[in-house]
Amino acid sequence: EEPPPPATGDPYAGDPPRHPALKVNSARPFNAEPPAELLSETFLTPNQLFFKRNHLPVPTVDPATYQLQVQGPDGRPLSLSLAELRSRFPRHEVTATLQCAGNRRSEMNAVRQVKGLEWGTAAIGTARWAGARLRDVLAHAGYAPDDGHNHVCFEGLDRDLSGTTYGASIPFRKAMNAEEDVLLAYEMNGEALPRDHGFPVRVVVPGVVGARNVKWLGRISVGPDESQSHWQQNDYKGFSPSVDWDTVDFTTAPAIQEMPVQSAITEPVPGATVPPGDLTVKGYAWSGGGRGIVRVDVSLDGGQTWHVATLAGEEQVPGRVWAWKLWQVTAPIPPGVTHLNILCKAVDASYNVQPDTVAPIWNLRGVLSNAWHRVTVTVERE
Amino acid sequence: EEPPPPATGDPYAGDPPRHPALKVNSARPFNAEPPAELLSETFLTPNQLFFKRNHLPVPTVDPATYQLQVQGPDGRPLSLSLAELRSRFPRHEVTATLQCAGNRRSEMNAVRQVKGLEWGTAAIGTARWAGARLRDVLAHAGYAPDDGHNHVCFEGLDRDLSGTTYGASIPFRKAMNAEEDVLLAYEMNGEALPRDHGFPVRVVVPGVVGARNVKWLGRISVGPDESQSHWQQNDYKGFSPSVDWDTVDFTTAPAIQEMPVQSAITEPVPGATVPPGDLTVKGYAWSGGGRGIVRVDVSLDGGQTWHVATLAGEEQVPGRVWAWKLWQVTAPIPPGVTHLNILCKAVDASYNVQPDTVAPIWNLRGVLSNAWHRVTVTVERE
Ligand SMILES: [Mo]
Ligand SMILES: [Mo]
Repeated sequence: EEPPPPATGDPYAGDPPRHPALKVNSARPFNAEPPAELLSETFLTPNQLFFKRNHLPVPTVDPATYQLQVQGPDGRPLSLSLAELRSRFPRHEVTATLQCAGNRRSEMNAVRQVKGLEWGTAAIGTARWAGARLRDVLAHAGYAPDDGHNHVCFEGLDRDLSGTTYGASIPFRKAMNAEEDVLLAYEMNGEALPRDHGFPVRVVVPGVVGARNVKWLGRISVGPDESQSHWQQNDYKGFSPSVDWDTVDFTTAPAIQEMPVQSAITEPVPGATVPPGDLTVKGYAWSGGGRGIVRVDVSLDGGQTWHVATLAGEEQVPGRVWAWKLWQVTAPIPPGVTHLNILCKAVDASYNVQPDTVAPIWNLRGVLSNAWHRVTVTVERE
Repeated sequence: EEPPPPATGDPYAGDPPRHPALKVNSARPFNAEPPAELLSETFLTPNQLFFKRNHLPVPTVDPATYQLQVQGPDGRPLSLSLAELRSRFPRHEVTATLQCAGNRRSEMNAVRQVKGLEWGTAAIGTARWAGARLRDVLAHAGYAPDDGHNHVCFEGLDRDLSGTTYGASIPFRKAMNAEEDVLLAYEMNGEALPRDHGFPVRVVVPGVVGARNVKWLGRISVGPDESQSHWQQNDYKGFSPSVDWDTVDFTTAPAIQEMPVQSAITEPVPGATVPPGDLTVKGYAWSGGGRGIVRVDVSLDGGQTWHVATLAGEEQVPGRVWAWKLWQVTAPIPPGVTHLNILCKAVDASYNVQPDTVAPIWNLRGVLSNAWHRVTVTVERE
């Protein structure tokens, strides 16, 4: 039932090969993002380029013997094979963006040292996911939406040498609501889930931070409490800039679920030299909780004047806008200007906006980094 | 059926008396807010001090003959008296904050002239509302949650001389969802609705901008389109700072429904002189969409350092946190400082934050003004 122990002394020896274009922030566990400028080339991020955020070695799972354990209301476990998960429940497809809590952490690090991986702006991606609805599986196990439970906990099959598995939870209310589109996904962009993305089954919780989208799903349980895992209790929470590692009390902040409105510039890249005349700026924008993006403002002059970008992407149902918008704007570079301070900021369906600067949202873990994105470029002389 | 025409030539002659402490931004129609420092004295805002935002004269409605018209799925109107509304449907109570779209508009006006009433920071208040659930009334009229309609439109009994009534709409999905707590309210803080707040019946849409909480409710209809009223189509929408009255296209922005995270300082008042030593700062914080407030940061030094405030208020269900939090923090004034630049900023359950400054969210109508609130005070010499 457990993944086989690694063949060598290296617990990461069984990790899969990766695309050479990825920028590796950590090799073991593997954490990597694509060059940001590739993100705006396709609305759906190719699987090989989709950011990888692993907390532990990638488990080796045999799809023929895989069994998903679901704890029933009477405590008895239900066990589902991959074939059963595919055949017993309607196949449901959702286009959803996943973003790491630490996306754009490097900008926080530039303000003051934080503890975490040095993510740039590309720890985010969008895929067409297919799988069973979590609510259908929970209903099959005997749960009803009005059962009054609080949380659905997930355990991964990835584990450290002491046997601790990755874990996280989401509200029961979210899990049981058909309109929230929570999936037990077995496909990503029309292919079987890649090993780095949770083969054979992962949770996809649209609108919610990547950390709750548990990969290599082994077990589901329902109960009054959030997951007791380190990652739910003592990580992936936001704090005031005034809180440091000596004063932090992790019980005082809620676990991140829905994420705030976000956007970033993918083109031009920082430090680029651009020709005079018209400049095209590209990027992405997304918000948590199904709140679609309603506008992106772009400035070429450090925020003195703004241009409204054109948004592109799949049309989704209001309140269930799980996917990002790619955006672009073309604007004239004023004659004689030698440097451009390019900014972007997005507005979501609740008219939430991004904060102007990084320092006031700085937090010791470097999560939730969503200040205006700034890229400086040089203008070629004519 | 219609309210009687005013007895004099003045359409506002029938307006009710008001509390003398209110600061009047417009007498006809009546628009007024309390002194902000009164807001933080009580979790529930007293009815007489609750901000009044009228678009038209207050209609005179006889509760004995009042009939609420509800357009049924077959087009036939259902008619409900006040007594029927009270007796036929379960009484439901909700504590919810209402905020005007234009709250804090005066701060936008200070950046650049906008078109709208000069609201300070007190066009917001919290009440315990009681009434019938809108979904129960719509179900009684023959609607089911999965009917696939898009919008529920409301018409007020308030009308201008040409006969145009106030109107607004909300998504059908919101109206039919029991967890959204949308009410047809006939009580406010334990009293019959005051005339300025919509006697005998108003809509209360928790988490949504005041403008959709239609007062003096006369008619409800359901259909594929939003309300065609001026206030839904050509007002109460947000635009880029780059858009002016020559270039605005109201079809390009969504009608404001859920509002973004908000907070303001109510004590000390701007320009106050405070004694040296410890300073207590008070205020309110709220966010739209049932996203509760998870933290308020307060700075006494213009944002260099931050203190985490203590939050107080009714405990509400996650995702249905409709009421504000009152907050306060006590912090030492550094010795020798003669002026304090006090700031506050709130964080909501999706970890959305307020923007640092007003200019980048400036919009021609002066709505959605939610930058950090800033109050400058003088410190007494010891
Ligand atoms: Mo993450
Ligand atoms: Mo309003």
